[in-house]
Amino acid sequence: MIQKQKQDAAIWFESLQKQICAAFEKLEQAADENLYGPTPGKFQFEPWVRSDKDPKQGGGISGLMRGRLFEKVGVHFSKVNGTFPADYARQIPGADEDPRFWASGVSVIAHMRNPRVPAVHMNTRYIVTTQDWFGGGGDLTPTLAAQRTQENPDALAFHAGMKEACTPHACADYDRYKDWCDEYFHLPHRDEPRGIGGIFYDRLNSGDWAADFAFTKDVGLAFLRTYTDIVRGRMSESWTDTEREEQLILRGRYVEFNLLYDRGTTFGLKTGGNVKTILSSMPPIVKWP
Amino acid sequence: MIQKQKQDAAIWFESLQKQICAAFEKLEQAADENLYGPTPGKFQFEPWVRSDKDPKQGGGISGLMRGRLFEKVGVHFSKVNGTFPADYARQIPGADEDPRFWASGVSVIAHMRNPRVPAVHMNTRYIVTTQDWFGGGGDLTPTLAAQRTQENPDALAFHAGMKEACTPHACADYDRYKDWCDEYFHLPHRDEPRGIGGIFYDRLNSGDWAADFAFTKDVGLAFLRTYTDIVRGRMSESWTDTEREEQLILRGRYVEFNLLYDRGTTFGLKTGGNVKTILSSMPPIVKWP
Repeated sequence: MIQKQKQDAAIWFESLQKQICAAFEKLEQAADENLYGPTPGKFQFEPWVRSDKDPKQGGGISGLMRGRLFEKVGVHFSKVNGTFPADYARQIPGADEDPRFWASGVSVIAHMRNPRVPAVHMNTRYIVTTQDWFGGGGDLTPTLAAQRTQENPDALAFHAGMKEACTPHACADYDRYKDWCDEYFHLPHRDEPRGIGGIFYDRLNSGDWAADFAFTKDVGLAFLRTYTDIVRGRMSESWTDTEREEQLILRGRYVEFNLLYDRGTTFGLKTGGNVKTILSSMPPIVKWP
Repeated sequence: MIQKQKQDAAIWFESLQKQICAAFEKLEQAADENLYGPTPGKFQFEPWVRSDKDPKQGGGISGLMRGRLFEKVGVHFSKVNGTFPADYARQIPGADEDPRFWASGVSVIAHMRNPRVPAVHMNTRYIVTTQDWFGGGGDLTPTLAAQRTQENPDALAFHAGMKEACTPHACADYDRYKDWCDEYFHLPHRDEPRGIGGIFYDRLNSGDWAADFAFTKDVGLAFLRTYTDIVRGRMSESWTDTEREEQLILRGRYVEFNLLYDRGTTFGLKTGGNVKTILSSMPPIVKWP
């Protein structure tokens, strides 16, 4: 039974990667050449394997576009299995008895050239140990102080999109997921939020696999629809050097968060994950003046 | 007795801060205006206190210069006391019985505009719990692959300077401190050294306080002499855009090291240290292309 569920989830994550990349390339092509230059970027796809010695441990496909509108965007699919290190296994539900795991997911981080177009992050995943669950979420990171408010139209649109993903699903608790996101994407050392929030959920297993999977699919689709709308609405605005400077500095917070606190990043880097893919989330240019 | 030792150490660290800043400003002024522009930078000094509520917990003086040759350099003095959080106290010699501590030190991180002039880090400190010890070291981080070898003249000069600081002192074990530095300043996720090394030592208490202090003073002076020589020898070389690009990317490794691994940085940020001073070590511009 679980074999079929793994397969369905992985097929979905891989197809979502393709849909997102196609949609982002379309925006990239539609960008105004007076603002972004004449040449649209294209995604480069790079397959990787978790272990050179054991191809059965799976791997993934890294998608990276260094474009004109999308200054740097990673859209990655992975499907891996292996054994958790002992001390990590203790922290993972169902892995204390048996440290073997299977995991598949898709993750997106977009850093935009135009400081008026917010950066974004989305990830959904399905994990199997002796237990199994979905997790994921999406959050929006505007880089200009003027846009980093809950009243900003982009923030309202993003929250509305994430709520729409939750509402039809009895297994999803929007209010809880929204709070969880605010709590997670917070920089304690600066006492600052990373962005304007979104949703975050983990260890979702309601007992109805099909329902949890349907919700997780809707998170991906709602993200895609909402974020492309936000980009389309902002991309024609021109920007000033001062705004670009503000963006490059704000990106430093992104780096601080990912390297100091983000569980996926620090775990991946400290336990031999795919460094190139993990660090593709780093912004292309950053300033700490 | 320990009061006098604390006082002597703190007076030295503060005077070393002043000497280093004066020497760096002299180099900054001597820089060729054709390469670096017409206006030399100056250090801005900013006093800070560890606790607004309790001025008796001390503080420090942050020195920061955003210059033309020194693109961004921090030279910081601190003298603080307080109580370690319980879980941290367990890791600190002498703090398990009594979590109170006193600490003073000086730290330097220089990021240079010219990619041919290596970046550098130096720190020396004196810590008192129910035990007391000196620690510190210095390491050089050239940013161009061509200079990141042990045979490079700057590397040879830096190692020679650090060795000179150790040799006259029976309490100092140069070979061990050199290895310790290589081991500490290493990025496991990339399996790369941060720079070309130097020395690193900690928990030095030979039983002869005056000897340990004399050695620690010599580390600071040897650093100052050696690094200013290296800068003076390199600063007239012009550089290419390709070299600048290489430098900005290599600086990313510095960020990764400091936020993922550096004990001082992560401890400071996670336990309410002076964020502005701690993060003044971040390079002014960085690229992850």
